[in-house]
Amino acid sequence: MHKLDENQWVSDVWPDLGTAFSLKISAKLHEEQSPFQRIAVYETSHFGRLMTIDGIIMLTDRDNFHYHEMLAHPALYNHPAPRNVVIIGGGDCGTLKEVLKHDEVESVIQIDIDERVTRVAEEYFPALCESNGDPRATLAFIDGIRWMAEAPAESVDLIIVDSTDPVGPAEGLFNVDFYRNCRRVLRSGGILVQQSEAPFLQLPWLLDIRAAMAEAGFMSRKTLSFPQPVYPSGFYSATLAGKDHDLGFFREADARAKPFVTEYYNAGIHRASAVLPEFLKRALD
Amino acid sequence: MHKLDENQWVSDVWPDLGTAFSLKISAKLHEEQSPFQRIAVYETSHFGRLMTIDGIIMLTDRDNFHYHEMLAHPALYNHPAPRNVVIIGGGDCGTLKEVLKHDEVESVIQIDIDERVTRVAEEYFPALCESNGDPRATLAFIDGIRWMAEAPAESVDLIIVDSTDPVGPAEGLFNVDFYRNCRRVLRSGGILVQQSEAPFLQLPWLLDIRAAMAEAGFMSRKTLSFPQPVYPSGFYSATLAGKDHDLGFFREADARAKPFVTEYYNAGIHRASAVLPEFLKRALD
Repeated sequence: MHKLDENQWVSDVWPDLGTAFSLKISAKLHEEQSPFQRIAVYETSHFGRLMTIDGIIMLTDRDNFHYHEMLAHPALYNHPAPRNVVIIGGGDCGTLKEVLKHDEVESVIQIDIDERVTRVAEEYFPALCESNGDPRATLAFIDGIRWMAEAPAESVDLIIVDSTDPVGPAEGLFNVDFYRNCRRVLRSGGILVQQSEAPFLQLPWLLDIRAAMAEAGFMSRKTLSFPQPVYPSGFYSATLAGKDHDLGFFREADARAKPFVTEYYNAGIHRASAVLPEFLKRALD
Repeated sequence: MHKLDENQWVSDVWPDLGTAFSLKISAKLHEEQSPFQRIAVYETSHFGRLMTIDGIIMLTDRDNFHYHEMLAHPALYNHPAPRNVVIIGGGDCGTLKEVLKHDEVESVIQIDIDERVTRVAEEYFPALCESNGDPRATLAFIDGIRWMAEAPAESVDLIIVDSTDPVGPAEGLFNVDFYRNCRRVLRSGGILVQQSEAPFLQLPWLLDIRAAMAEAGFMSRKTLSFPQPVYPSGFYSATLAGKDHDLGFFREADARAKPFVTEYYNAGIHRASAVLPEFLKRALD
Protein backbone atom coordinates (compact mmCIF):
# COMPACT_ATOMS: atom_id res chain seq x y z
CA MET A 1 0.00 0.00 0.00
CA HIS A 2 1.24 3.45 -0.87
CA LYS A 3 1.32 6.19 1.66
CA LEU A 4 -0.29 9.50 0.76
CA ASP A 5 2.30 12.13 1.55
CA GLU A 6 0.49 15.26 2.67
CA ASN A 7 2.85 17.41 0.67
CA GLN A 8 2.02 15.61 -2.56
CA TRP A 9 -1.67 14.82 -2.20
CA VAL A 10 -4.72 16.89 -1.31
CA SER A 11 -7.18 14.58 0.41
CA ASP A 12 -10.88 15.22 0.70
CA VAL A 13 -11.72 13.10 3.72
CA TRP A 14 -15.30 12.15 4.66
CA PRO A 15 -15.09 10.26 7.97
CA ASP A 16 -18.89 10.04 8.17
CA LEU A 17 -19.01 8.35 4.76
CA GLY A 18 -15.89 6.25 5.36
CA THR A 19 -14.29 7.50 2.13
CA ALA A 20 -11.54 9.83 1.01
CA PHE A 21 -10.56 11.04 -2.42
CA SER A 22 -7.13 12.47 -3.14
CA LEU A 23 -5.53 14.38 -5.98
CA LYS A 24 -1.80 14.49 -6.57
CA ILE A 25 -0.48 18.03 -6.46
CA SER A 26 2.72 19.68 -7.56
CA ALA A 27 2.26 23.07 -5.86
CA LYS A 28 0.00 25.16 -3.68
CA LEU A 29 -0.71 28.33 -5.63
CA HIS A 30 -2.90 30.25 -3.23
CA GLU A 31 -4.52 30.11 0.18
CA GLU A 32 -6.61 32.65 2.04
CA GLN A 33 -9.21 32.97 4.72
CA SER A 34 -12.10 34.97 3.30
CA PRO A 35 -14.74 36.42 5.62
CA PHE A 36 -16.70 33.22 5.03
CA GLN A 37 -14.38 30.31 4.34
CA ARG A 38 -10.85 29.09 3.62
CA ILE A 39 -10.10 29.09 -0.11
CA ALA A 40 -7.07 27.28 -1.55
CA VAL A 41 -5.80 26.64 -5.09
CA TYR A 42 -3.35 23.92 -6.08
CA GLU A 43 -1.65 22.77 -9.25
CA THR A 44 -2.36 19.05 -9.65
CA SER A 45 -0.42 16.45 -11.60
CA HIS A 46 -3.29 15.35 -13.88
CA PHE A 47 -6.37 17.51 -13.23
CA GLY A 48 -5.06 21.00 -13.96
CA ARG A 49 -5.82 23.42 -11.16
CA LEU A 50 -7.83 22.49 -8.07
CA MET A 51 -9.87 24.73 -5.77
CA THR A 52 -10.76 23.65 -2.24
CA ILE A 53 -13.05 25.45 0.19
CA ASP A 54 -12.62 24.62 3.86
CA GLY A 55 -10.51 21.64 2.76
CA ILE A 56 -13.26 20.19 0.57
CA ILE A 57 -12.58 19.68 -3.13
CA MET A 58 -14.74 22.12 -5.11
CA LEU A 59 -13.54 21.78 -8.67
CA THR A 60 -10.68 21.04 -11.01
CA ASP A 61 -9.96 22.34 -14.48
CA ARG A 62 -10.23 18.87 -15.95
CA ASP A 63 -13.52 17.52 -14.69
CA ASN A 64 -15.74 20.44 -13.63
CA PHE A 65 -17.59 20.27 -16.95
CA HIS A 66 -19.71 17.34 -15.74
CA TYR A 67 -21.22 19.29 -12.87
CA HIS A 68 -21.52 22.72 -14.48
CA GLU A 69 -23.11 21.40 -17.67
CA MET A 70 -25.58 19.20 -15.82
CA LEU A 71 -26.63 22.01 -13.49
CA ALA A 72 -27.31 24.33 -16.42
CA HIS A 73 -28.37 22.63 -19.68
CA PRO A 74 -31.05 20.12 -18.62
CA ALA A 75 -33.04 22.77 -16.76
CA LEU A 76 -32.62 25.31 -19.56
CA TYR A 77 -33.85 22.85 -22.20
CA ASN A 78 -36.70 21.76 -19.94
CA HIS A 79 -38.00 25.33 -19.89
CA PRO A 80 -39.90 26.57 -22.95
CA ALA A 81 -38.38 30.07 -22.87
CA PRO A 82 -35.80 30.71 -20.14
CA ARG A 83 -35.20 34.45 -20.31
CA ASN A 84 -34.28 35.46 -16.76
CA VAL A 85 -31.99 33.22 -14.73
CA VAL A 86 -30.67 33.51 -11.18
CA ILE A 87 -27.71 31.51 -9.89
CA ILE A 88 -27.40 31.26 -6.12
CA GLY A 89 -23.83 30.41 -5.19
CA GLY A 90 -21.76 29.42 -8.20
CA GLY A 91 -18.98 31.86 -7.35
CA ASP A 92 -16.47 30.04 -9.54
CA CYS A 93 -18.58 31.22 -12.51
CA GLY A 94 -18.58 27.82 -14.25
CA THR A 95 -22.37 27.51 -14.15
CA LEU A 96 -22.75 31.10 -15.33
CA LYS A 97 -20.56 30.35 -18.33
CA GLU A 98 -22.77 27.39 -19.32
CA VAL A 99 -26.01 29.38 -18.88
CA LEU A 100 -24.69 32.18 -21.07
CA LYS A 101 -24.19 29.73 -23.93
CA HIS A 102 -27.99 29.92 -24.42
CA ASP A 103 -28.92 32.80 -26.68
CA GLU A 104 -32.49 32.78 -25.42
CA VAL A 105 -31.27 33.84 -21.96
CA GLU A 106 -31.62 37.61 -21.58
CA SER A 107 -30.26 38.08 -18.07
CA VAL A 108 -28.38 36.08 -15.45
CA ILE A 109 -27.72 37.28 -11.92
CA GLN A 110 -25.09 35.28 -10.05
CA ILE A 111 -25.42 35.80 -6.31
CA ASP A 112 -22.57 34.43 -4.21
CA ILE A 113 -22.06 35.66 -0.68
CA ASP A 114 -18.27 35.35 -0.98
CA GLU A 115 -16.71 37.72 -3.52
CA ARG A 116 -13.29 36.15 -2.87
CA VAL A 117 -14.34 32.87 -4.52
CA THR A 118 -15.01 34.76 -7.73
CA ARG A 119 -11.84 36.85 -7.53
CA VAL A 120 -9.77 33.71 -6.96
CA ALA A 121 -11.55 31.98 -9.87
CA GLU A 122 -10.87 34.96 -12.14
CA GLU A 123 -7.18 34.70 -11.33
CA TYR A 124 -6.68 30.93 -11.29
CA PHE A 125 -9.54 29.55 -13.42
CA PRO A 126 -9.81 32.10 -16.24
CA ALA A 127 -11.56 29.62 -18.53
CA LEU A 128 -14.51 29.42 -16.13
CA CYS A 129 -14.76 33.21 -15.98
CA GLU A 130 -14.43 33.94 -19.68
CA SER A 131 -18.07 34.99 -20.00
CA ASN A 132 -18.17 37.20 -16.91
CA GLY A 133 -18.05 40.29 -19.09
CA ASP A 134 -21.17 39.27 -21.04
CA PRO A 135 -23.58 42.23 -20.92
CA ARG A 136 -26.38 39.84 -19.88
CA ALA A 137 -24.50 38.84 -16.70
CA THR A 138 -24.57 40.53 -13.29
CA LEU A 139 -22.31 39.38 -10.47
CA ALA A 140 -23.63 40.22 -7.01
CA PHE A 141 -21.81 39.44 -3.78
CA ILE A 142 -24.65 39.43 -1.30
CA ASP A 143 -26.68 36.97 0.76
CA GLY A 144 -28.68 34.79 -1.64
CA ILE A 145 -31.23 33.82 1.02
CA ARG A 146 -32.05 37.44 1.71
CA TRP A 147 -32.05 38.32 -2.00
CA MET A 148 -34.59 35.56 -2.63
CA ALA A 149 -36.77 36.74 0.27
CA GLU A 150 -36.87 40.27 -1.14
CA ALA A 151 -37.03 39.60 -4.89
CA PRO A 152 -40.29 40.43 -6.67
CA ALA A 153 -42.76 37.60 -7.19
CA GLU A 154 -42.90 35.90 -10.60
CA SER A 155 -39.83 37.66 -11.97
CA VAL A 156 -37.52 34.75 -12.84
CA ASP A 157 -37.74 31.69 -15.14
CA LEU A 158 -34.96 29.54 -13.70
CA ILE A 159 -33.18 29.47 -10.35
CA ILE A 160 -29.99 27.40 -10.12
CA VAL A 161 -28.68 26.69 -6.64
CA ASP A 162 -25.00 25.90 -7.10
CA SER A 163 -23.90 25.76 -3.50
CA THR A 164 -21.62 23.93 -1.13
CA ASP A 165 -23.10 21.17 1.06
CA PRO A 166 -26.00 21.71 3.46
CA VAL A 167 -23.69 22.30 6.40
CA GLY A 168 -22.07 25.63 7.24
CA PRO A 169 -22.69 28.77 5.17
CA ALA A 170 -24.94 27.06 2.60
CA GLU A 171 -27.27 25.32 5.04
CA GLY A 172 -29.99 27.95 4.53
CA LEU A 173 -30.13 27.12 0.80
CA PHE A 174 -31.61 23.69 1.46
CA ASN A 175 -34.74 24.32 3.49
CA VAL A 176 -38.45 24.87 3.01
CA ASP A 177 -38.36 28.62 3.73
CA PHE A 178 -35.77 29.24 1.03
CA TYR A 179 -37.53 27.00 -1.47
CA ARG A 180 -40.85 28.78 -0.75
CA ASN A 181 -39.22 32.06 -1.68
CA CYS A 182 -37.75 30.49 -4.80
CA ARG A 183 -41.19 29.26 -5.79
CA ARG A 184 -42.69 32.71 -5.22
CA VAL A 185 -40.00 34.39 -7.32
CA LEU A 186 -40.42 31.96 -10.22
CA ARG A 187 -42.87 32.71 -12.97
CA SER A 188 -45.46 30.13 -13.91
CA GLY A 189 -43.63 27.28 -15.64
CA GLY A 190 -40.48 28.20 -13.73
CA ILE A 191 -37.87 25.69 -12.61
CA LEU A 192 -35.63 25.47 -9.58
CA VAL A 193 -32.56 23.25 -9.88
CA GLN A 194 -30.41 22.40 -6.90
CA GLN A 195 -27.18 20.39 -6.69
CA SER A 196 -28.47 17.44 -4.67
CA GLU A 197 -25.36 15.59 -3.52
CA ALA A 198 -24.21 12.02 -4.15
CA PRO A 199 -27.23 9.73 -4.56
CA PHE A 200 -25.41 6.58 -3.45
CA LEU A 201 -23.38 7.95 -0.54
CA GLN A 202 -25.42 10.95 0.57
CA LEU A 203 -28.93 9.71 -0.07
CA PRO A 204 -30.41 11.23 3.13
CA TRP A 205 -29.43 14.70 1.89
CA LEU A 206 -31.04 14.05 -1.48
CA LEU A 207 -34.24 12.83 0.18
CA ASP A 208 -34.31 15.91 2.44
CA ILE A 209 -33.91 18.21 -0.55
CA ARG A 210 -36.76 16.54 -2.43
CA ALA A 211 -39.01 16.55 0.63
CA ALA A 212 -38.34 20.24 1.26
CA MET A 213 -39.10 21.09 -2.38
CA ALA A 214 -42.42 19.26 -2.13
CA GLU A 215 -43.29 20.93 1.17
CA ALA A 216 -42.51 24.33 -0.38
CA GLY A 217 -45.25 23.69 -2.94
CA PHE A 218 -43.32 22.68 -6.06
CA MET A 219 -45.60 20.46 -8.11
CA SER A 220 -42.91 18.11 -9.46
CA ARG A 221 -39.36 16.95 -8.89
CA LYS A 222 -36.88 15.22 -11.18
CA THR A 223 -33.47 13.97 -10.06
CA LEU A 224 -30.68 13.68 -12.63
CA SER A 225 -27.50 11.73 -11.96
CA PHE A 226 -24.12 12.06 -13.62
CA PRO A 227 -20.46 11.31 -12.97
CA GLN A 228 -18.43 13.88 -11.09
CA PRO A 229 -15.06 12.25 -10.42
CA VAL A 230 -13.81 14.55 -7.64
CA TYR A 231 -16.99 14.51 -5.54
CA PRO A 232 -17.90 11.75 -3.05
CA SER A 233 -18.46 8.41 -4.82
CA GLY A 234 -17.67 10.02 -8.18
CA PHE A 235 -21.40 10.07 -8.93
CA TYR A 236 -23.52 13.11 -8.26
CA SER A 237 -26.99 14.53 -8.77
CA ALA A 238 -29.03 17.62 -9.50
CA THR A 239 -32.72 17.87 -8.69
CA LEU A 240 -35.15 19.96 -10.71
CA ALA A 241 -38.41 21.20 -9.22
CA GLY A 242 -41.29 22.49 -11.34
CA LYS A 243 -43.26 25.37 -9.85
CA ASP A 244 -46.67 24.40 -11.19
CA HIS A 245 -46.05 21.80 -13.92
CA ASP A 246 -44.73 18.30 -14.41
CA LEU A 247 -41.27 18.88 -16.00
CA GLY A 248 -42.19 16.62 -18.91
CA PHE A 249 -41.57 19.38 -21.44
CA PHE A 250 -38.21 19.16 -23.23
CA ARG A 251 -37.02 21.30 -26.14
CA GLU A 252 -35.40 18.22 -27.61
CA ALA A 253 -34.93 19.59 -31.12
CA ASP A 254 -33.15 22.62 -29.67
CA ALA A 255 -30.94 20.39 -27.52
CA ARG A 256 -30.05 18.23 -30.55
CA ALA A 257 -29.14 21.36 -32.52
CA LYS A 258 -27.40 23.15 -29.65
CA PRO A 259 -25.16 25.83 -31.16
CA PHE A 260 -22.35 25.36 -28.63
CA VAL A 261 -19.84 22.67 -27.66
CA THR A 262 -20.22 20.60 -24.51
CA GLU A 263 -18.06 17.87 -23.01
CA TYR A 264 -20.75 15.87 -21.21
CA TYR A 265 -24.29 17.07 -21.97
CA ASN A 266 -26.22 16.17 -25.10
CA ALA A 267 -29.87 15.43 -25.87
CA GLY A 268 -29.39 11.70 -25.25
CA ILE A 269 -27.75 12.37 -21.90
CA HIS A 270 -30.64 14.73 -21.07
CA ARG A 271 -33.04 11.80 -21.11
CA ALA A 272 -30.61 9.14 -19.83
CA SER A 273 -29.58 11.17 -16.77
CA ALA A 274 -33.17 11.09 -15.51
CA VAL A 275 -33.39 7.29 -15.59
CA LEU A 276 -33.12 6.07 -12.02
CA PRO A 277 -31.31 2.90 -10.98
CA GLU A 278 -33.34 0.45 -8.91
CA PHE A 279 -32.03 1.48 -5.49
CA LEU A 280 -32.78 5.12 -6.19
CA LYS A 281 -36.20 4.41 -7.69
CA ARG A 282 -37.16 2.55 -4.52
CA ALA A 283 -35.74 5.30 -2.30
CA LEU A 284 -37.55 8.11 -4.13
CA ASP A 285 -40.90 6.37 -4.46
CA MET B 1 -6.59 18.82 5.73
CA HIS B 2 -6.95 15.46 7.40
CA LYS B 3 -4.17 12.97 7.34
CA LEU B 4 -4.97 9.45 6.19
CA ASP B 5 -3.54 7.18 8.86
CA GLU B 6 -2.40 3.98 7.18
CA ASN B 7 -3.79 1.93 10.01
CA GLN B 8 -7.28 3.35 9.52
CA TRP B 9 -7.53 3.77 5.76
CA VAL B 10 -6.87 1.49 2.82
CA SER B 11 -5.76 3.67 -0.08
CA ASP B 12 -5.93 2.68 -3.71
CA VAL B 13 -3.30 4.97 -5.19
CA TRP B 14 -2.96 5.61 -8.94
CA PRO B 15 0.10 7.81 -9.39
CA ASP B 16 -0.24 7.65 -13.19
CA LEU B 17 -3.79 9.01 -12.94
CA GLY B 18 -2.98 11.47 -10.16
CA THR B 19 -5.80 10.11 -7.97
CA ALA B 20 -6.28 7.98 -4.89
CA PHE B 21 -9.39 6.57 -3.30
CA SER B 22 -9.47 5.44 0.32
CA LEU B 23 -11.85 3.48 2.49
CA LYS B 24 -11.88 3.71 6.27
CA ILE B 25 -11.23 0.34 7.87
CA SER B 26 -11.69 -1.05 11.33
CA ALA B 27 -9.74 -4.29 10.94
CA LYS B 28 -7.68 -6.40 8.57
CA LEU B 29 -9.38 -9.78 8.45
CA HIS B 30 -7.12 -11.70 6.09
CA GLU B 31 -4.01 -11.42 3.99
CA GLU B 32 -2.21 -14.00 1.89
CA GLN B 33 0.12 -14.35 -1.04
CA SER B 34 -1.49 -16.77 -3.50
CA PRO B 35 0.59 -18.28 -6.31
CA PHE B 36 -0.63 -15.37 -8.45
CA GLN B 37 -1.26 -12.31 -6.33
CA ARG B 38 -1.60 -10.79 -2.85
CA ILE B 39 -5.17 -11.05 -1.56
CA ALA B 40 -6.38 -9.06 1.48
CA VAL B 41 -9.73 -8.60 3.20
CA TYR B 42 -10.66 -5.74 5.51
CA GLU B 43 -13.65 -4.71 7.56
CA THR B 44 -14.53 -1.14 6.58
CA SER B 45 -16.44 1.46 8.55
CA HIS B 46 -19.20 2.04 5.97
CA PHE B 47 -18.78 -0.36 3.04
CA GLY B 48 -18.95 -3.75 4.74
CA ARG B 49 -16.04 -5.95 3.80
CA LEU B 50 -13.39 -4.99 1.28
CA MET B 51 -11.18 -7.20 -0.87
CA THR B 52 -7.94 -5.93 -2.38
CA ILE B 53 -5.66 -7.73 -4.84
CA ASP B 54 -2.08 -6.52 -5.04
CA GLY B 55 -3.18 -3.47 -3.07
CA ILE B 56 -5.88 -2.49 -5.58
CA ILE B 57 -9.48 -2.26 -4.41
CA MET B 58 -11.47 -5.08 -6.02
CA LEU B 59 -14.86 -4.93 -4.32
CA THR B 60 -16.84 -4.10 -1.22
CA ASP B 61 -20.03 -5.62 0.14
CA ARG B 62 -21.86 -2.35 -0.22
CA ASP B 63 -21.23 -1.23 -3.78
CA ASN B 64 -20.18 -4.27 -5.86
CA PHE B 65 -23.72 -4.59 -7.22
CA HIS B 66 -23.14 -1.80 -9.74
CA TYR B 67 -20.33 -3.64 -11.48
CA HIS B 68 -21.61 -7.21 -11.23
CA GLU B 69 -25.11 -6.36 -12.42
CA MET B 70 -23.86 -4.28 -15.34
CA LEU B 71 -21.43 -6.96 -16.47
CA ALA B 72 -24.18 -9.59 -16.49
CA HIS B 73 -27.69 -8.30 -17.20
CA PRO B 74 -27.30 -5.99 -20.22
CA ALA B 75 -25.47 -8.67 -22.23
CA LEU B 76 -27.92 -11.38 -21.15
CA TYR B 77 -30.93 -9.32 -22.19
CA ASN B 78 -29.22 -8.33 -25.44
CA HIS B 79 -28.98 -12.00 -26.40
CA PRO B 80 -32.14 -13.70 -27.71
CA ALA B 81 -31.48 -17.01 -25.89
CA PRO B 82 -28.36 -17.13 -23.71
CA ARG B 83 -28.06 -20.78 -22.75
CA ASN B 84 -24.33 -21.36 -22.29
CA VAL B 85 -22.24 -18.73 -20.54
CA VAL B 86 -18.54 -18.56 -19.75
CA ILE B 87 -17.05 -16.16 -17.22
CA ILE B 88 -13.31 -15.55 -17.50
CA GLY B 89 -11.99 -14.24 -14.20
CA GLY B 90 -14.76 -13.32 -11.81
CA GLY B 91 -13.27 -15.38 -8.97
CA ASP B 92 -15.26 -13.49 -6.33
CA CYS B 93 -18.38 -15.15 -7.86
CA GLY B 94 -20.43 -11.94 -7.90
CA THR B 95 -20.91 -12.02 -11.66
CA LEU B 96 -21.74 -15.72 -11.56
CA LYS B 97 -24.47 -15.00 -9.01
CA GLU B 98 -26.06 -12.41 -11.30
CA VAL B 99 -25.88 -14.67 -14.38
CA LEU B 100 -27.57 -17.50 -12.50
CA LYS B 101 -30.57 -15.27 -11.79
CA HIS B 102 -31.56 -15.90 -15.43
CA ASP B 103 -33.63 -19.06 -15.77
CA GLU B 104 -32.88 -19.31 -19.50
CA VAL B 105 -29.20 -19.92 -18.70
CA GLU B 106 -28.48 -23.66 -18.75
CA SER B 107 -24.77 -23.67 -17.90
CA VAL B 108 -22.14 -21.25 -16.61
CA ILE B 109 -18.45 -22.06 -16.39
CA GLN B 110 -16.44 -19.63 -14.26
CA ILE B 111 -12.75 -19.85 -15.10
CA ASP B 112 -10.42 -18.01 -12.74
CA ILE B 113 -6.75 -18.86 -12.65
CA ASP B 114 -6.54 -18.18 -8.90
CA GLU B 115 -8.56 -20.58 -6.77
CA ARG B 116 -7.60 -18.63 -3.65
CA VAL B 117 -9.72 -15.63 -4.73
CA THR B 118 -12.79 -17.85 -4.73
CA ARG B 119 -11.92 -19.57 -1.46
CA VAL B 120 -11.40 -16.19 0.22
CA ALA B 121 -14.69 -14.93 -1.25
CA GLU B 122 -16.51 -18.02 0.03
CA GLU B 123 -15.24 -17.29 3.52
CA TYR B 124 -15.52 -13.50 3.67
CA PHE B 125 -18.16 -12.62 1.05
CA PRO B 126 -20.70 -15.43 1.43
CA ALA B 127 -23.47 -13.36 -0.19
CA LEU B 128 -21.55 -13.25 -3.47
CA CYS B 129 -21.05 -17.03 -3.38
CA GLU B 130 -24.57 -18.05 -2.44
CA SER B 131 -25.27 -19.50 -5.89
CA ASN B 132 -22.01 -21.42 -6.25
CA GLY B 133 -23.84 -24.68 -5.51
CA ASP B 134 -26.31 -24.14 -8.38
CA PRO B 135 -26.21 -27.32 -10.52
CA ARG B 136 -25.84 -25.17 -13.63
CA ALA B 137 -22.54 -23.70 -12.35
CA THR B 138 -19.02 -25.07 -12.79
CA LEU B 139 -16.04 -23.44 -11.10
CA ALA B 140 -12.74 -24.12 -12.84
CA PHE B 141 -9.38 -22.84 -11.61
CA ILE B 142 -7.33 -22.91 -14.77
CA ASP B 143 -5.85 -20.51 -17.30
CA GLY B 144 -8.71 -18.77 -19.12
CA ILE B 145 -6.55 -17.85 -22.11
CA ARG B 146 -5.61 -21.46 -22.69
CA TRP B 147 -9.17 -22.64 -22.05
CA MET B 148 -10.44 -20.25 -24.72
CA ALA B 149 -7.77 -21.38 -27.20
CA GLU B 150 -8.80 -25.01 -26.75
CA ALA B 151 -12.58 -24.70 -26.41
CA PRO B 152 -14.72 -26.03 -29.28
CA ALA B 153 -15.88 -23.53 -31.89
CA GLU B 154 -19.43 -22.18 -31.68
CA SER B 155 -20.17 -23.71 -28.28
CA VAL B 156 -21.00 -20.65 -26.14
CA ASP B 157 -23.61 -17.84 -26.28
CA LEU B 158 -22.03 -15.31 -23.96
CA ILE B 159 -18.49 -14.75 -22.72
CA ILE B 160 -18.03 -12.35 -19.80
CA VAL B 161 -14.49 -11.20 -19.10
CA ASP B 162 -14.51 -10.06 -15.47
CA SER B 163 -10.82 -9.49 -14.93
CA THR B 164 -8.35 -7.23 -13.22
CA ASP B 165 -6.69 -4.46 -15.24
CA PRO B 166 -4.67 -5.08 -18.42
CA VAL B 167 -1.39 -5.17 -16.53
CA GLY B 168 0.02 -8.22 -14.75
CA PRO B 169 -1.81 -11.58 -14.79
CA ALA B 170 -4.83 -10.35 -16.76
CA GLU B 171 -2.92 -8.65 -19.59
CA GLY B 172 -3.54 -11.58 -21.94
CA LEU B 173 -7.31 -11.11 -21.60
CA PHE B 174 -7.23 -7.80 -23.47
CA ASN B 175 -5.58 -8.58 -26.78
CA VAL B 176 -6.54 -9.56 -30.32
CA ASP B 177 -5.42 -13.21 -30.00
CA PHE B 178 -7.66 -13.79 -27.00
CA TYR B 179 -10.59 -11.96 -28.56
CA ARG B 180 -10.18 -14.01 -31.78
CA ASN B 181 -10.53 -17.17 -29.75
CA CYS B 182 -13.56 -15.76 -27.96
CA ARG B 183 -15.13 -14.99 -31.31
CA ARG B 184 -14.44 -18.50 -32.57
CA VAL B 185 -15.95 -20.08 -29.43
CA LEU B 186 -19.12 -17.97 -29.64
CA ARG B 187 -22.11 -19.22 -31.58
CA SER B 188 -23.66 -17.01 -34.24
CA GLY B 189 -25.39 -14.15 -32.41
CA GLY B 190 -22.97 -14.56 -29.52
CA ILE B 191 -21.77 -11.70 -27.34
CA LEU B 192 -18.48 -10.97 -25.61
CA VAL B 193 -18.58 -8.49 -22.74
CA GLN B 194 -15.43 -7.14 -21.15
CA GLN B 195 -14.97 -4.80 -18.19
CA SER B 196 -13.48 -1.83 -20.02
CA GLU B 197 -12.10 0.43 -17.29
CA ALA B 198 -12.93 4.03 -16.38
CA PRO B 199 -13.99 5.95 -19.50
CA PHE B 200 -12.98 9.36 -18.15
CA LEU B 201 -9.67 8.47 -16.47
CA GLN B 202 -8.55 5.38 -18.39
CA LEU B 203 -9.82 6.19 -21.86
CA PRO B 204 -6.71 4.82 -23.66
CA TRP B 205 -7.43 1.36 -22.20
CA LEU B 206 -11.05 1.54 -23.34
CA LEU B 207 -9.98 2.57 -26.84
CA ASP B 208 -7.46 -0.29 -26.98
CA ILE B 209 -10.12 -2.80 -25.94
CA ARG B 210 -12.53 -1.60 -28.60
CA ALA B 211 -9.83 -1.59 -31.27
CA ALA B 212 -8.73 -5.12 -30.38
CA MET B 213 -12.34 -6.36 -30.50
CA ALA B 214 -12.75 -4.87 -33.96
CA GLU B 215 -9.45 -6.32 -35.18
CA ALA B 216 -10.50 -9.74 -33.87
CA GLY B 217 -13.48 -9.62 -36.23
CA PHE B 218 -16.38 -8.70 -33.96
CA MET B 219 -18.96 -6.93 -36.09
CA SER B 220 -20.16 -4.43 -33.46
CA ARG B 221 -19.20 -2.87 -30.16
CA LYS B 222 -21.30 -1.08 -27.52
CA THR B 223 -19.84 0.60 -24.44
CA LEU B 224 -22.01 0.95 -21.34
CA SER B 225 -21.11 3.27 -18.49
CA PHE B 226 -22.24 3.15 -14.88
CA PRO B 227 -21.16 4.33 -11.43
CA GLN B 228 -18.75 2.17 -9.48
CA PRO B 229 -17.77 4.20 -6.41
CA VAL B 230 -14.63 2.29 -5.40
CA TYR B 231 -13.02 2.19 -8.85
CA PRO B 232 -10.97 5.04 -10.35
CA SER B 233 -13.14 8.15 -10.96
CA GLY B 234 -16.19 6.33 -9.54
CA PHE B 235 -17.42 5.83 -13.08
CA TYR B 236 -16.76 2.65 -15.00
CA SER B 237 -17.61 0.84 -18.20
CA ALA B 238 -18.30 -2.50 -19.82
CA THR B 239 -17.98 -3.06 -23.56
CA LEU B 240 -20.10 -5.57 -25.47
CA ALA B 241 -18.96 -7.00 -28.79
CA GLY B 242 -21.33 -8.78 -31.18
CA LYS B 243 -19.83 -11.71 -33.09
CA ASP B 244 -21.76 -11.23 -36.33
CA HIS B 245 -24.61 -8.82 -35.54
CA ASP B 246 -25.26 -5.24 -34.48
CA LEU B 247 -26.28 -5.61 -30.79
CA GLY B 248 -29.51 -3.74 -31.47
CA PHE B 249 -31.63 -6.62 -30.21
CA PHE B 250 -32.94 -6.20 -26.66
CA ARG B 251 -35.40 -8.46 -24.86
CA GLU B 252 -36.95 -5.36 -23.33
CA ALA B 253 -40.21 -6.99 -22.22
CA ASP B 254 -38.20 -9.68 -20.41
CA ALA B 255 -36.02 -7.05 -18.76
CA ARG B 256 -39.10 -5.09 -17.63
CA ALA B 257 -40.58 -8.27 -16.15
CA LYS B 258 -37.34 -9.61 -14.71
CA PRO B 259 -38.22 -12.16 -12.02
CA PHE B 260 -35.37 -11.16 -9.67
CA VAL B 261 -34.35 -8.17 -7.59
CA THR B 262 -31.52 -5.87 -8.63
CA GLU B 263 -30.02 -2.81 -6.99
CA TYR B 264 -28.83 -0.96 -10.08
CA TYR B 265 -29.97 -2.57 -13.33
CA ASN B 266 -33.41 -2.16 -14.86
CA ALA B 267 -34.75 -1.88 -18.39
CA GLY B 268 -34.46 1.91 -18.34
CA ILE B 269 -30.86 1.73 -17.17
CA HIS B 270 -30.20 -0.83 -19.93
CA ARG B 271 -30.88 1.81 -22.55
CA ALA B 272 -29.57 4.80 -20.58
CA SER B 273 -26.20 3.18 -19.86
CA ALA B 274 -25.46 2.99 -23.59
CA VAL B 275 -25.97 6.73 -24.13
CA LEU B 276 -22.56 8.30 -24.51
CA PRO B 277 -21.60 11.72 -23.17
CA GLU B 278 -20.10 14.11 -25.70
CA PHE B 279 -16.44 13.54 -24.84
CA LEU B 280 -16.85 9.79 -25.15
CA LYS B 281 -18.89 10.00 -28.34
CA ARG B 282 -16.10 12.04 -29.92
CA ALA B 283 -13.42 9.66 -28.63
CA LEU B 284 -15.20 6.52 -29.88
CA ASP B 285 -16.17 7.88 -33.27
